Amino acid sequence: MRMKTDMTIKALQTAYAEGRTTPAQVMAQIRQRAAEYEKRNIWIHLLSRAEQKPWLDALADKDPARHPLWGIPFAIKDNIDLAGIPTTAGCPAFAYTPEASAQVVQQLIDAGAIPVGKTNLDQFATGLNGTRSPYGPCRNAFDPEYISGGSSSGSAVAVALGLASFSLGTDTAGSGRVPACFNNLVGLKPTKGLLSSTGLVPACRSLDCISIFALDTDDADRVLACAEGFDPRDGYSRRNRFDNSSRQYGLHTGPLRLGILADDQLRFFGDRDYEQAYRQTLTALEQAGVELVTIDYAPFDEAARLLYEGPWVAERYIACEPLLKRQPDAIHPVVRAIVEPGGEPRATDLFRAQYRLQELRLACMAQMEGLDCLLTPTAGRLFTVDEMLAEPILYNAQLGYYTNFMNLLDMTSVAVPTAFTARGLPFGVTLVGDHFSDRMLLSIANRIRQILPLPLGALEIAGSATAAPPCRDSRYTELLVCGAHLEGQPLNWQLTERGGRLKACTTTAASYRLYALAGGPPQRPALVRDEQQGAAIEVEIWSLPTAELGSFVAAIPAPLGIGKVELADGRWVSGFICEASGLSGATDITACGGWRVWLQSQSTCS
Amino acid sequence: MRMKTDMTIKALQTAYAEGRTTPAQVMAQIRQRAAEYEKRNIWIHLLSRAEQKPWLDALADKDPARHPLWGIPFAIKDNIDLAGIPTTAGCPAFAYTPEASAQVVQQLIDAGAIPVGKTNLDQFATGLNGTRSPYGPCRNAFDPEYISGGSSSGSAVAVALGLASFSLGTDTAGSGRVPACFNNLVGLKPTKGLLSSTGLVPACRSLDCISIFALDTDDADRVLACAEGFDPRDGYSRRNRFDNSSRQYGLHTGPLRLGILADDQLRFFGDRDYEQAYRQTLTALEQAGVELVTIDYAPFDEAARLLYEGPWVAERYIACEPLLKRQPDAIHPVVRAIVEPGGEPRATDLFRAQYRLQELRLACMAQMEGLDCLLTPTAGRLFTVDEMLAEPILYNAQLGYYTNFMNLLDMTSVAVPTAFTARGLPFGVTLVGDHFSDRMLLSIANRIRQILPLPLGALEIAGSATAAPPCRDSRYTELLVCGAHLEGQPLNWQLTERGGRLKACTTTAASYRLYALAGGPPQRPALVRDEQQGAAIEVEIWSLPTAELGSFVAAIPAPLGIGKVELADGRWVSGFICEASGLSGATDITACGGWRVWLQSQSTCS
Repeated sequence: MRMKTDMTIKALQTAYAEGRTTPAQVMAQIRQRAAEYEKRNIWIHLLSRAEQKPWLDALADKDPARHPLWGIPFAIKDNIDLAGIPTTAGCPAFAYTPEASAQVVQQLIDAGAIPVGKTNLDQFATGLNGTRSPYGPCRNAFDPEYISGGSSSGSAVAVALGLASFSLGTDTAGSGRVPACFNNLVGLKPTKGLLSSTGLVPACRSLDCISIFALDTDDADRVLACAEGFDPRDGYSRRNRFDNSSRQYGLHTGPLRLGILADDQLRFFGDRDYEQAYRQTLTALEQAGVELVTIDYAPFDEAARLLYEGPWVAERYIACEPLLKRQPDAIHPVVRAIVEPGGEPRATDLFRAQYRLQELRLACMAQMEGLDCLLTPTAGRLFTVDEMLAEPILYNAQLGYYTNFMNLLDMTSVAVPTAFTARGLPFGVTLVGDHFSDRMLLSIANRIRQILPLPLGALEIAGSATAAPPCRDSRYTELLVCGAHLEGQPLNWQLTERGGRLKACTTTAASYRLYALAGGPPQRPALVRDEQQGAAIEVEIWSLPTAELGSFVAAIPAPLGIGKVELADGRWVSGFICEASGLSGATDITACGGWRVWLQSQSTCS
Repeated sequence: MRMKTDMTIKALQTAYAEGRTTPAQVMAQIRQRAAEYEKRNIWIHLLSRAEQKPWLDALADKDPARHPLWGIPFAIKDNIDLAGIPTTAGCPAFAYTPEASAQVVQQLIDAGAIPVGKTNLDQFATGLNGTRSPYGPCRNAFDPEYISGGSSSGSAVAVALGLASFSLGTDTAGSGRVPACFNNLVGLKPTKGLLSSTGLVPACRSLDCISIFALDTDDADRVLACAEGFDPRDGYSRRNRFDNSSRQYGLHTGPLRLGILADDQLRFFGDRDYEQAYRQTLTALEQAGVELVTIDYAPFDEAARLLYEGPWVAERYIACEPLLKRQPDAIHPVVRAIVEPGGEPRATDLFRAQYRLQELRLACMAQMEGLDCLLTPTAGRLFTVDEMLAEPILYNAQLGYYTNFMNLLDMTSVAVPTAFTARGLPFGVTLVGDHFSDRMLLSIANRIRQILPLPLGALEIAGSATAAPPCRDSRYTELLVCGAHLEGQPLNWQLTERGGRLKACTTTAASYRLYALAGGPPQRPALVRDEQQGAAIEVEIWSLPTAELGSFVAAIPAPLGIGKVELADGRWVSGFICEASGLSGATDITACGGWRVWLQSQSTCS
């Protein structure tokens, strides 16, 4: 039954380029196969051939080389608008047919992607399990007895089963991560505001994110690059930062130091298979050299509980208010039970909760200090559909134990598959970083997939994660200093006031000469590369926030500048260089071996 | 009656250093003169000699060179804690005696500053006028018939009258700016979270800022440097950015482009003197070469109205709730009338208002695009005490027309005096920037004081604003490129994707040689300074956000780097330099005059 076609973007586009298939053929196969999976309740509206034709026809005018998603099929959660197709948000009484596509959908189509259909969801995106839908419970891609996870249920199952290369979900409480975990997918919950919410049915408008399901991290990065962008129509829109742009994907590859939960803060709710899968994951990471550091999850947990126990449910009430007043019986009973009390909290309750949240964010950021990211199970237990229907509130709450805090704390996360249980059900972990860490998290997720290689989704295809080049955390830059910026020297404040930290006292490769420039104070050295007659010079390596390096460089007077210097261990780091023209009148002090020695014994050395 | 002692920090510290006076003598004089001003209702608690003694005694152990506020008297608004002295917030029934000083007060004392006393305020900081106090209406430093402005009333009048060198106020709606305007002071409403709120009685906790009144911008910068700092005990605390550190003060001195309101959006509420003072201010700025650009104030005004017409009053309710329940009659009737309804709004109301606010912030930021800052009157009308008591709500609302939006929009502002009316009453304008623009705004305020010099406060002392050095907007750095980064060349994306913009096509000074380095692709040039045999080389100047320059520099491979290059007009800008050792195998292409010419005609030129 499982499909053996590689549906990754790269594989499909290679097939197109080599003439082995066409987008129209792929779409026809998808429609055929979707029929086989009808009982999974994946789709609310699968596009007919006629509905899809305009998008396919438009490909003729698009150059594949300039359209990074040319001919790539994607699924859309049915709370996101696709022009001309009803948006139901999982509630037939709510349905409307939008004239325009959501901003993100339009950007993907502009990049060449082809919509396959609108997918099933927990009604109004209220749920993490996939059973709260009048279109039937969406069923797991690996075993239909099990839940798909939600609320982006159909979007995940569609990609896992090869009915789309990627899909859009949404993620307010965990809806873009839990279904990724249960269906062996990469699930990106992007930085809030990075993807426009124009054309999205709100759940909690201050927290909602459109999210991305993909077969691997390369695809998630590429889809994100096409989907992101500032949108002045969306008040919550934010401009991305360069150090979080697609150019940074794959660059985070130094030693990894990840935060994990203390054992007594872990929750598996009786699912021994999941607990075992989690332990296996940690063991494999440790064996691969990843450093795991225990953090205190208490402030994360307290923030998570604010989402449903606190006044944020008022946002869901706002989203459903007209229907609640007009036709309350049209709402799924479980969803209605959650949403209806949302009109009650006072503004004072909300302010008090927001005050507490501010404090919790500081406490959580303090826990993450010095870590590349946090790593948690994505979910503690995988329930069967029958279990979930029997305990719809309690079990759903358990699904959010590791996810509910994310948007309240303005953090970013990537769910990544790491194991299969003995029954063949998927398990995964979630990487958590601050906002604007999307590419760093995708890079780390990619590395984890290399350590723990798994098939793609529910396809019988091995993953082929890109090998990441050896590189560094782009948020910090190593900077070599050799004179007035050394610790204790007169210009050292220029490093410390920018948040610089001393990383190492070392020497250059034996390929440099050291000069004392004419002029001053402050007296300044010049490090000049000389492969024939050079020596090893004492230097310090400082770590500086990359965002602060620019103002440091801009303040350096001629003839000095920042280039690359070779260290004794053969690495090249950013550091002081000097123009040749500036050496006139300079004193060669190479024999001193370093600036401090020369300062101390100026007369004997020079 | 007016004092002729220069109370600026620099003047006092010079007098201390020269032995002309001592802190104890200054404090004794202040207490004596405070008695003369008793009817202005400046103080709620003026420290006795005995209460002040411990602070003065501690100076003996402090080195003046290492304590930037050594011996400087300062006043504290009575909603900010000073250890051992009652905090009343203007409400005797609310009073308590704190064991510890507020974090900001402690930092100032640690820097050597000496508390003079706790100042009168509009009760619970609810008001902009200075009459809502059971301790009597605080009266203007220039004419006691007029209001002081509020709510930081006494803090402003104390500095204006020379009873303190600087003071702490608070600013939620405009309380740190309106009294500055009415008493001829510089009033800094810092970036939210830059100063800790630990030890501050909340008004609207999500919006409150401790603010600074000073006689000039130099003092405001120095006090800010001592008062700012991250505080993990305050959930709203934020870490400052280097480009907003004290090092940046005075550096913003390029041509000024300020936004002003369209005439039909200005409001003077019948105060022709203030209207005339505002027009005079604009004329003087234009004559000094400042470019004034009309913006649309509508989104700022809509945000401003949210503060009192929307659900934020719930925050004031929270702050007063225990007293409201226990002893409502103890609250000033006008304040009670404002605060009491704050328990009514729903969380849904607040979310809807916060959604709108997000949209308004984007609209306001769009209006400020390309401007150094916005300039508005600080207040439209200066009322007499009698007028204000007769119309306590309406006139107070009018005082907030230009101020109420600031903290809701997370912006920063500096009130700066610019004129006196024919009656000798002070008028001033407010400069508005985004958060973390404190030092840029203080720098611009300093320049405005040079254009429009005025006496200090109500002292008969001329101001002596520091002449700012000719420098640049530190948020952007000019970068010279000469090869693969030129517009249209293969690495140009490294500039454009970082938000870089082409500023000029020009040439270097006639002191450079141009080489084509061995290796590639991409082929790379090297610009090498040669004062004897150099030529003028074609280059481009790009403007790059300084925060993005670091990652650009970090990505440059040896032998190139970023240093300083001399332009044809004699200016030195950041640009590509090259180590001498890297020239081996390079081709001298100086005769081509530029990289593009060489690329086009490689065979004939090289």
